[in-house]
Amino acid sequence: MPRVALLTGFEPYGGLDRNPSAEVVKQLDGAEILGRRVVGRILPVTFGPLRRRIHDLLQETGPVAVVSLGLCPGEPVIRLERVAVNIADFTIPDNEGARLADDVVVPEGLTALPATLPLRAIEQALLRAGIPARLSTTAGTFLCNATMYTVLQAEQAAGVPSGFVHLPYLAEQVARLCEEVRAGKSAEPYAPHALASMSLGTMVEAARIILEVSLEERPRPPASSSRPTA
Amino acid sequence: MPRVALLTGFEPYGGLDRNPSAEVVKQLDGAEILGRRVVGRILPVTFGPLRRRIHDLLQETGPVAVVSLGLCPGEPVIRLERVAVNIADFTIPDNEGARLADDVVVPEGLTALPATLPLRAIEQALLRAGIPARLSTTAGTFLCNATMYTVLQAEQAAGVPSGFVHLPYLAEQVARLCEEVRAGKSAEPYAPHALASMSLGTMVEAARIILEVSLEERPRPPASSSRPTA
Amino acid sequence: MPRVALLTGFEPYGGLDRNPSAEVVKQLDGAEILGRRVVGRILPVTFGPLRRRIHDLLQETGPVAVVSLGLCPGEPVIRLERVAVNIADFTIPDNEGARLADDVVVPEGLTALPATLPLRAIEQALLRAGIPARLSTTAGTFLCNATMYTVLQAEQAAGVPSGFVHLPYLAEQVARLCEEVRAGKSAEPYAPHALASMSLGTMVEAARIILEVSLEERPRPPASSSRPTA
Amino acid sequence: MPRVALLTGFEPYGGLDRNPSAEVVKQLDGAEILGRRVVGRILPVTFGPLRRRIHDLLQETGPVAVVSLGLCPGEPVIRLERVAVNIADFTIPDNEGARLADDVVVPEGLTALPATLPLRAIEQALLRAGIPARLSTTAGTFLCNATMYTVLQAEQAAGVPSGFVHLPYLAEQVARLCEEVRAGKSAEPYAPHALASMSLGTMVEAARIILEVSLEERPRPPASSSRPTA
Repeated sequence: MPRVALLTGFEPYGGLDRNPSAEVVKQLDGAEILGRRVVGRILPVTFGPLRRRIHDLLQETGPVAVVSLGLCPGEPVIRLERVAVNIADFTIPDNEGARLADDVVVPEGLTALPATLPLRAIEQALLRAGIPARLSTTAGTFLCNATMYTVLQAEQAAGVPSGFVHLPYLAEQVARLCEEVRAGKSAEPYAPHALASMSLGTMVEAARIILEVSLEERPRPPASSSRPTA
Repeated sequence: MPRVALLTGFEPYGGLDRNPSAEVVKQLDGAEILGRRVVGRILPVTFGPLRRRIHDLLQETGPVAVVSLGLCPGEPVIRLERVAVNIADFTIPDNEGARLADDVVVPEGLTALPATLPLRAIEQALLRAGIPARLSTTAGTFLCNATMYTVLQAEQAAGVPSGFVHLPYLAEQVARLCEEVRAGKSAEPYAPHALASMSLGTMVEAARIILEVSLEERPRPPASSSRPTA
Repeated sequence: MPRVALLTGFEPYGGLDRNPSAEVVKQLDGAEILGRRVVGRILPVTFGPLRRRIHDLLQETGPVAVVSLGLCPGEPVIRLERVAVNIADFTIPDNEGARLADDVVVPEGLTALPATLPLRAIEQALLRAGIPARLSTTAGTFLCNATMYTVLQAEQAAGVPSGFVHLPYLAEQVARLCEEVRAGKSAEPYAPHALASMSLGTMVEAARIILEVSLEERPRPPASSSRPTA
Repeated sequence: MPRVALLTGFEPYGGLDRNPSAEVVKQLDGAEILGRRVVGRILPVTFGPLRRRIHDLLQETGPVAVVSLGLCPGEPVIRLERVAVNIADFTIPDNEGARLADDVVVPEGLTALPATLPLRAIEQALLRAGIPARLSTTAGTFLCNATMYTVLQAEQAAGVPSGFVHLPYLAEQVARLCEEVRAGKSAEPYAPHALASMSLGTMVEAARIILEVSLEERPRPPASSSRPTA
């Protein structure tokens, strides 16, 4: 049985009713890309169970590639993260009310782990397809970064290409935000650019390209790899 | 013969190879909305002939509503302009190299003219359709503002609802911009938000909604109006 | 007795404990510039009494020039407003809880009134002094704009140069905002640039230069002016 | 003889005639803080000689703390960097024309190194002094990051607290930038916030506080440290 590509997103958080990463995951769950089935999973926005959940998911699916998606409010393009850091420092509480401060993702973990996805090839493929994209050197210090760090740490021995991609708001979310500002229910953002968005169709296309390039360029695992296949 | 709705856009400028406003106009030229035919026209980005061209166009088409579109680089949403000012003050040259400084659009003209489109009804319809939108009190001091001012001045006597709408970059334009930055051919924007964009499909849908609401809510012209019909 | 230059600022609003415009006014109240005494006054951030208060103040002081100051959160430079519009449309309530929507400053007033301060000479003098400054075509639709519109309408007959200047946050205010974000008491701004600030000393110097240039370039009032002198 | 605190800045680059980091260094070179002499040094903005220069400087001065400063155009506050990454990827050329792409700072180096300055204590002291400040998880991928990485790698064995601080533009630099935009000599920034600045006096005060807190909280080096003292 062919091994799968794992695509993760997050549930909504921070008072929003949707999370674009979950919407993209729902659209691609079950799709077949370069002969691999895409397994889409939604992660909780709660630090406590997050690492266990990720480890279970990796064990359960034994993926050949892992692409994790998350929302970055205000970000205008597909943002390919280069580095996950061993820092957990939240400016808002997670969905269970935890607000970690100057903490770590993994005790005794390395300071940072680099993405193992072929980021430049992905960037080039996205731009050629007319989809705005850029590389970034910070995935923040909230659950997006924690997820990236956890997956990279788990998959590095097996050489499974893994990484994290930040998505803009969905256009509909910004429309809702505009309505709330208009109704006085939400504070006006300091700057219009907090209102950047992308259509769901473009984001789904972006995720498909990211998976495709990741699967194409997957380096062969070492022959002696002891990694169990699902 | 039913009178038409006029939709204008601009040719490319500032080194860009496309202008989203022209792309939207091409898509809607000839469409029928609420029984009115949409006449789409592309305006030059040259101050010299602009006013004459607009007057000819209004004379030729005798529209029942005028919606003008233009690009605002970095703007993330559909921006509905409330006011045109009698100022022409360019930070970049127009397509013939003219760079007006502290000049006026129309000698002896009023300081400002208010949009006569039903902006709040348009905003509401756009947001309900999930399209990000906001009202703005400045259309700048370049050709977008000059077009808005010229149309409003020409149409105010006849009571034809008119106004201006700023559009974000097309997604493809930002992808190109990202490529140029990556290749060192273009300066990196100071801030990522200069990279905000919108899909052409969303912009076309927005323009259709704007025209529809404008035609629905069109106030009856005064009975004694001497305006010639085309 | 020589006539005075009027400098206005605003009391704090929107949950802030200080308003940079009031701090600048306190520093310059009573100063002498080019032989004119500066009269500094703090205006309420309440739409109801604002216009009456301004008219009383103009009557009382009979100024030869009026410079009004206000805060623009997130603005990084001294922003010289070109135009006041006859729109009152608040995204936050004023200090008495009023939240006007799509209203006017003055019933039957003109759409807009242009600043009568020598803005380009002021800009040049500020930049030469090393103080960041720019012209703007929108003073917003809150009380800053209402003040600018009211003063311009009142003073235009007498030819008294008048206008409005937006100021950045004080550095101390942004330090406080950073503390609140850090403590989880305030939402993190979407973008770092909401944290732009300027030192009080630079703002006071800017206001002094603005008054000086305004007094230097003051056009002679018409000989037949019936304006009462204070 | 008491050991010194090393404060580094950069020469101008990118077409600018000044670098705020160098200006701050000049003001504090030779100052005495908590009984330590501040040694201020200006680094070249050229990748080639940078690492050798830094190693020589550390050897020569044998500092008890190292604070490196650099400019971040558009940044509005004192930005305390948490992490240096082993990436050299320039969007503009350095002062000798080198434009590294997807390269490393140090072959075989760790992915990232954490700042060893007491960042939270520094942040708190700055904010209490009314100086805007924030922590950041990316120092970019240009020479600022390369300097931070190089110093941290060199000093980690000896336990010398070290780190990097990004500074805003000087107010005078933004005034110059505004002049250039006004004169059409420079492209208008996409967003006003590219115009954020800080006064030199505030930056010097910030650097003094950073050094003071770093010296106060300096952890004792291990007794067996073989580090040579200057």
